[in-house]
Amino acid sequence: MSGSMKDTQDIPPEHPITLEKVGITNLKTLIKIDRHNQEFRHIPTITIHMDLDEQKKGIHMSRLIESVTELLEEEVVKKHSSLEEIGKDILNNLKSKHHFQKSGITISSELPLYQKTPASKKDTIEVHDITVEVSNDHDTWSKVLTVSVTGNTVCPHALSMNPGKTHIQRARGILRVETDFDTEIPLEDMVEVVENSFSSRVYTLLKSEDESLVVSRMYENPLFVEDVCRNMLALSRDKFSGCRIRATCISNESIHRHDVYAEGMVVT
Amino acid sequence: MSGSMKDTQDIPPEHPITLEKVGITNLKTLIKIDRHNQEFRHIPTITIHMDLDEQKKGIHMSRLIESVTELLEEEVVKKHSSLEEIGKDILNNLKSKHHFQKSGITISSELPLYQKTPASKKDTIEVHDITVEVSNDHDTWSKVLTVSVTGNTVCPHALSMNPGKTHIQRARGILRVETDFDTEIPLEDMVEVVENSFSSRVYTLLKSEDESLVVSRMYENPLFVEDVCRNMLALSRDKFSGCRIRATCISNESIHRHDVYAEGMVVT
Amino acid sequence: MSGSMKDTQDIPPEHPITLEKVGITNLKTLIKIDRHNQEFRHIPTITIHMDLDEQKKGIHMSRLIESVTELLEEEVVKKHSSLEEIGKDILNNLKSKHHFQKSGITISSELPLYQKTPASKKDTIEVHDITVEVSNDHDTWSKVLTVSVTGNTVCPHALSMNPGKTHIQRARGILRVETDFDTEIPLEDMVEVVENSFSSRVYTLLKSEDESLVVSRMYENPLFVEDVCRNMLALSRDKFSGCRIRATCISNESIHRHDVYAEGMVVT
Amino acid sequence: MSGSMKDTQDIPPEHPITLEKVGITNLKTLIKIDRHNQEFRHIPTITIHMDLDEQKKGIHMSRLIESVTELLEEEVVKKHSSLEEIGKDILNNLKSKHHFQKSGITISSELPLYQKTPASKKDTIEVHDITVEVSNDHDTWSKVLTVSVTGNTVCPHALSMNPGKTHIQRARGILRVETDFDTEIPLEDMVEVVENSFSSRVYTLLKSEDESLVVSRMYENPLFVEDVCRNMLALSRDKFSGCRIRATCISNESIHRHDVYAEGMVVT
Repeated sequence: MSGSMKDTQDIPPEHPITLEKVGITNLKTLIKIDRHNQEFRHIPTITIHMDLDEQKKGIHMSRLIESVTELLEEEVVKKHSSLEEIGKDILNNLKSKHHFQKSGITISSELPLYQKTPASKKDTIEVHDITVEVSNDHDTWSKVLTVSVTGNTVCPHALSMNPGKTHIQRARGILRVETDFDTEIPLEDMVEVVENSFSSRVYTLLKSEDESLVVSRMYENPLFVEDVCRNMLALSRDKFSGCRIRATCISNESIHRHDVYAEGMVVT
Repeated sequence: MSGSMKDTQDIPPEHPITLEKVGITNLKTLIKIDRHNQEFRHIPTITIHMDLDEQKKGIHMSRLIESVTELLEEEVVKKHSSLEEIGKDILNNLKSKHHFQKSGITISSELPLYQKTPASKKDTIEVHDITVEVSNDHDTWSKVLTVSVTGNTVCPHALSMNPGKTHIQRARGILRVETDFDTEIPLEDMVEVVENSFSSRVYTLLKSEDESLVVSRMYENPLFVEDVCRNMLALSRDKFSGCRIRATCISNESIHRHDVYAEGMVVT
Repeated sequence: MSGSMKDTQDIPPEHPITLEKVGITNLKTLIKIDRHNQEFRHIPTITIHMDLDEQKKGIHMSRLIESVTELLEEEVVKKHSSLEEIGKDILNNLKSKHHFQKSGITISSELPLYQKTPASKKDTIEVHDITVEVSNDHDTWSKVLTVSVTGNTVCPHALSMNPGKTHIQRARGILRVETDFDTEIPLEDMVEVVENSFSSRVYTLLKSEDESLVVSRMYENPLFVEDVCRNMLALSRDKFSGCRIRATCISNESIHRHDVYAEGMVVT
Repeated sequence: MSGSMKDTQDIPPEHPITLEKVGITNLKTLIKIDRHNQEFRHIPTITIHMDLDEQKKGIHMSRLIESVTELLEEEVVKKHSSLEEIGKDILNNLKSKHHFQKSGITISSELPLYQKTPASKKDTIEVHDITVEVSNDHDTWSKVLTVSVTGNTVCPHALSMNPGKTHIQRARGILRVETDFDTEIPLEDMVEVVENSFSSRVYTLLKSEDESLVVSRMYENPLFVEDVCRNMLALSRDKFSGCRIRATCISNESIHRHDVYAEGMVVT
């Protein structure tokens, strides 16, 4: 190929339609984060995309990968203190390699937290699913943080109909906070909001005394998915300002094959 | 419980927040459709939801299930001619049982189509993923139809760099059409749009002569995910009017571990 | 290609190693079954395989597909009365097209059953996951039937420690029966065994009176996963003779993020 | 409960049937490994199980969790040099807490490897799925190591029929090595065996010159899934002695909706 030839990506497409998002998805890599002097490591699944002008046939996909890998090399000195910070640096790096109007990155990973069991005070590690999205629209940066946390629901209706008895089940609370890039929202605070919204929070390790405490809490705090969802929204409203907050609770009903769910949002 | 007592669902919630969607998800059932005098059967996964007023603690979940099961009983005489028609009848049935402002149903299933192989003209059955959503907002009905169809991409850039040689891979095209309830959009037409957008359509059965035809087509028609996405949008624009159309192509690159994708939309 | 040339599949491989299973997987198609004069339709996921001699480079994959599609054409007159019967016919059809010593087919699908709710006696449709495997080894036929059914567990230990209170959760029972091809084991009987092994069976539709009945049953019948697993084995032992029976129960603990499980087998 | 009362787990079950495996599954935790002075971190999914005597109703599930968490506490001094070593220590810890005849642990995680691109010699991180199983049967220890690695296949039959043209697709090679606990099999060596078995290995980052090299390799090395499977077995046979080795290749055919696969084994 002669050096004067255009790259295939740069020729006009058959149909001159602007595309919103072109990029890479299901990319796995290794990310190290230095947070409050503690190293976190992630092997996330990453999506990275940009818009594509109606005059170009394609984007240069390898530059998206390079914008990621250059930042992650073992030799790199800069320590990132959060996934959103590294996401922003990747998009800035991408901007230096490839023209775009809008771009975004989604990093899905897990957050392991060291905790104590509620009664026996033993060590337990709790792992939560998290997603961090960073978007660049012309000169504006924004982010969306999502945590997905396991807990439970205890049916208040069944309890009112069958005194002392009800159905109980595992549930999942998903909290999504959209805000300016610079508003700091610790993922740990989001996890805590969700855990405090359930009939009871759950633990990986439970000795007999811990289990009794959790069982007791559940019967004292019967909640529909609607209640858990509203608890998440109410607790978030008090805690996170300047945000669009979306909460979903999905409950794996123990008396049905299907799940029930509730979803709502508040703007703070 | 005394008959004069309020159901738990009807008492005021702790946090008076309106919820957008409350309902049931991951519900499996059996649906029979009579279409052009041909019976289709689906065992779909269903989500059905309504909004919840800030003054009520919960919705009556069993009425959502009843609104589905009453229509599906073996004895029912009415033949539905499409999934969207049965979806609308379920929401109308629900309206007679439970107050709401907005409600919606999502039915995810598969569409088996009888086809002929391209050269040997043998019978082959091709199965595509489909989703039908029906929404009711006060007195307005709308619907969203989605098909997800397998095909392939052949890299034009690699072909320009390595004459006669390139990388080829399986890809998936997802076409989503949002429109008024009464605008008829056959799912088969949507499948055809996606199949005609790839480097080549694929077949379950391919005798040697068919395989040669498909291989030949692929090399004659190299396409990026961007091209496939724009093809879907351009072909849809010509075919479906009065719609918001979204197209996504995801390609399982044969030279990478990750996928590449392109997403765009047109309004017709 | 000249007619006298060998197909690529028939040339000797670089490494003359016999392969146990070569074939097709994740194949979706449409199967119609006529069972007790009632038509069942399946859109299963199919795996079909055969062994490969160390002297051949490959098998002829399109013949596997043809052995399926020829039987499924709309015009075919023969009505199959079960998935295992159609599986056997597919392998017999394959044998007429391609040499093998051993072959097998796995058909994964869903079984919708019409039921009545326990107290209100309303109609409800319950859908269970099923898998039917048929194997041919020289002249011997065998089959493996598997059902995967949702129910629940109620912890007897927590109930003994916290009188009247315990944790309850959704669970899944998986029953696998391996037997001669001709031993008739109705999938419905297998589903019933699993449902009767839980603390309570579950229903898609539950009116308030049904829900109270299920809640009441659960507290009267607290069971560990170990108990559910042994119930499945004990009930199967009484019902199915001449079989190797494997049972697994997985419980989605409502007080933990992880699941607990028990697995065992009996030969009858 | 009086201290002299038996735990519910220790009473005789209704059906005295020995169970093969009782335990915990889908447990997520954080594991740190010190390997050749390099720290690896895993957030694996863990299954841990033991057999259960016919005289006991249940096992003490919390002891399984404790056997894991005690080893993983931040303060623990001992550095484990591999996942199988930590698996063995967990089972030994479990043995000190709970009687069993047989037990096992399965740790599923990911292995990130730093590599160079083939032509441009740039840094790239490649992430592979791995599973490490350790089993204890009375006094005997064994292990099973599995890697699942992405690559590609290029159809030799289509190439022979259509000179210069063929279909190409992403494929997955799964290599499973079962051996004595003390036989050292580096996971990196297993990954290399799989990568060397494909038409070409794949890379996360490919600059244009790298892409051309990979494309060129693919056309020079057309392989069926059968060939890839036999390559894995032949290369493993030369490299790993004293093992039962199972290899599977699954190819996501670019001309079909379904996958093709081949599976075989050798004992070395």
